[in-house]
Amino acid sequence: MDALKQAMASAAVDVEATLQKVMESEDEPERRLFDSMRYAALGGGKRLRPFLVMQGAGLFSVSRKSARRAAAAIELVHCYSLVHDDLPAMDDDDLRRGKPTVHKAFDEATAILAGDALLTLAFEVLSHPDTHSNPEVRCMLVAALARAAGAHGMVGGQMIDLAAADREMDIGEITRLQRLKTGALIGFACEAGAILGQAGEPQHEALRGYAHDLGLAFQIADDLLDVEGTAEEVGKAVGKDADQGKATFVSILGPERARDQATMLVEQAAAHLAIFDEKADFLRKVAQYIVERRS
Amino acid sequence: MDALKQAMASAAVDVEATLQKVMESEDEPERRLFDSMRYAALGGGKRLRPFLVMQGAGLFSVSRKSARRAAAAIELVHCYSLVHDDLPAMDDDDLRRGKPTVHKAFDEATAILAGDALLTLAFEVLSHPDTHSNPEVRCMLVAALARAAGAHGMVGGQMIDLAAADREMDIGEITRLQRLKTGALIGFACEAGAILGQAGEPQHEALRGYAHDLGLAFQIADDLLDVEGTAEEVGKAVGKDADQGKATFVSILGPERARDQATMLVEQAAAHLAIFDEKADFLRKVAQYIVERRS
Repeated sequence: MDALKQAMASAAVDVEATLQKVMESEDEPERRLFDSMRYAALGGGKRLRPFLVMQGAGLFSVSRKSARRAAAAIELVHCYSLVHDDLPAMDDDDLRRGKPTVHKAFDEATAILAGDALLTLAFEVLSHPDTHSNPEVRCMLVAALARAAGAHGMVGGQMIDLAAADREMDIGEITRLQRLKTGALIGFACEAGAILGQAGEPQHEALRGYAHDLGLAFQIADDLLDVEGTAEEVGKAVGKDADQGKATFVSILGPERARDQATMLVEQAAAHLAIFDEKADFLRKVAQYIVERRS
Repeated sequence: MDALKQAMASAAVDVEATLQKVMESEDEPERRLFDSMRYAALGGGKRLRPFLVMQGAGLFSVSRKSARRAAAAIELVHCYSLVHDDLPAMDDDDLRRGKPTVHKAFDEATAILAGDALLTLAFEVLSHPDTHSNPEVRCMLVAALARAAGAHGMVGGQMIDLAAADREMDIGEITRLQRLKTGALIGFACEAGAILGQAGEPQHEALRGYAHDLGLAFQIADDLLDVEGTAEEVGKAVGKDADQGKATFVSILGPERARDQATMLVEQAAAHLAIFDEKADFLRKVAQYIVERRS
């Protein structure tokens, strides 16, 4: 796992530099907005999605610069979603990545605007010629990110999640919820390299299959951490799903079967990558890492 | 003015149909999200920005379909900004376009998500091949909208506006605030047709100049309505700037000088259009309409 951790750290450094660059600001009256955006997006998180982009891009000889910018765009969207999800009207969380959430460190209005600006910036980054010389590719990235992040993807999933405390859900409904809420963006992260590398349909298909299983494994691991982890380890409040009576993979399957399911999904995820050579090894390993992580 | 009003109504019908189409949904658990998006974006407003797009596109023989989609994208962004600006943590408004604001008709969490989804959808619409056959053009639209709507544009302006109640601002600062908050998106609306039509730099330049003056005139008219209009006429609460002690064009210049300034800007806006023939007549007239409107 040491080589994997090094590769993850290296992707994190890469994306951090790109994020810093695209959020530079002058000392204008709106400075507070940029401060809150940087607070939300810099210096934290596992940077899993950027790592998936970088590794996916590595399968198709995509330039590191292109990969970095696509990775940064996805991380901007991920960070915006955390800022808005943490708001008092949503999950009302005070702690994120081990520090106060944006609306706690700044204020609610600033947090709303920071999220809006991070989301918007993601599309500015993707559409810029620096991301890829071919505008067709850039358009495909924009379209795919918008689809993954919007009402038919992440935001739709969050809407279902908000209603989840009020109604019984079966395992099929929870799976669909998670496929939208976290799966769609992870799916785009896994496929972005194939879009950048203008890969063939079998490669896209393989990465979509991988992402589908990885996303669910990731979510089950998250649910397990919410039950078994401590706030100190995880960097955010735990036990919230149970407190709110929300159905999760763990509440329905129980921790043991949930863990088995995650292990099975990890193997299945790796199996989708059979068409790739050893360049996909880190993608194979990160699936394992995801279900074993403690934070 | 009757021909102008007819042209505005026709643009509104066009954009309404496109908005309806891009917000279609199945009867899924996230249905509430789509309902709130439709509530926010359909059946209301002057549709000024779509009208500017359609008229700008008319100068360059752009297909009506392309123009409609660009117009719809801008209106989606405009509507998202209204939903988020109306939130309790922001301007805390109960009334918009004569009906309850989204967080009143639904709830706060749904309003946050509806705004997020509308914004995201705008980029999905622009990046889609239906908007223009040339992906370079679509990328330019995405980039320009992101720039106009983001931290260096509309969201940045909103950040300054939030702080405006707490500090003295002079006319230069207010002008910059409004250039970002409302001017940037109006600027993109005026220039979108030139992007779609791949017009030359002099045409872009003329439309940017026009938009700059039009945007300020529009804002001054808005400030005047906030002082002189009734909630019934305007469809939203009035007198809020004065109540909050916010400096506006009207509070600094007084209503008379503000009105003179708006009239001067309208003439100046029209002068920028001298390089265009009678196809630009509605753009010339709408500037006048904007400062004379009562809602």
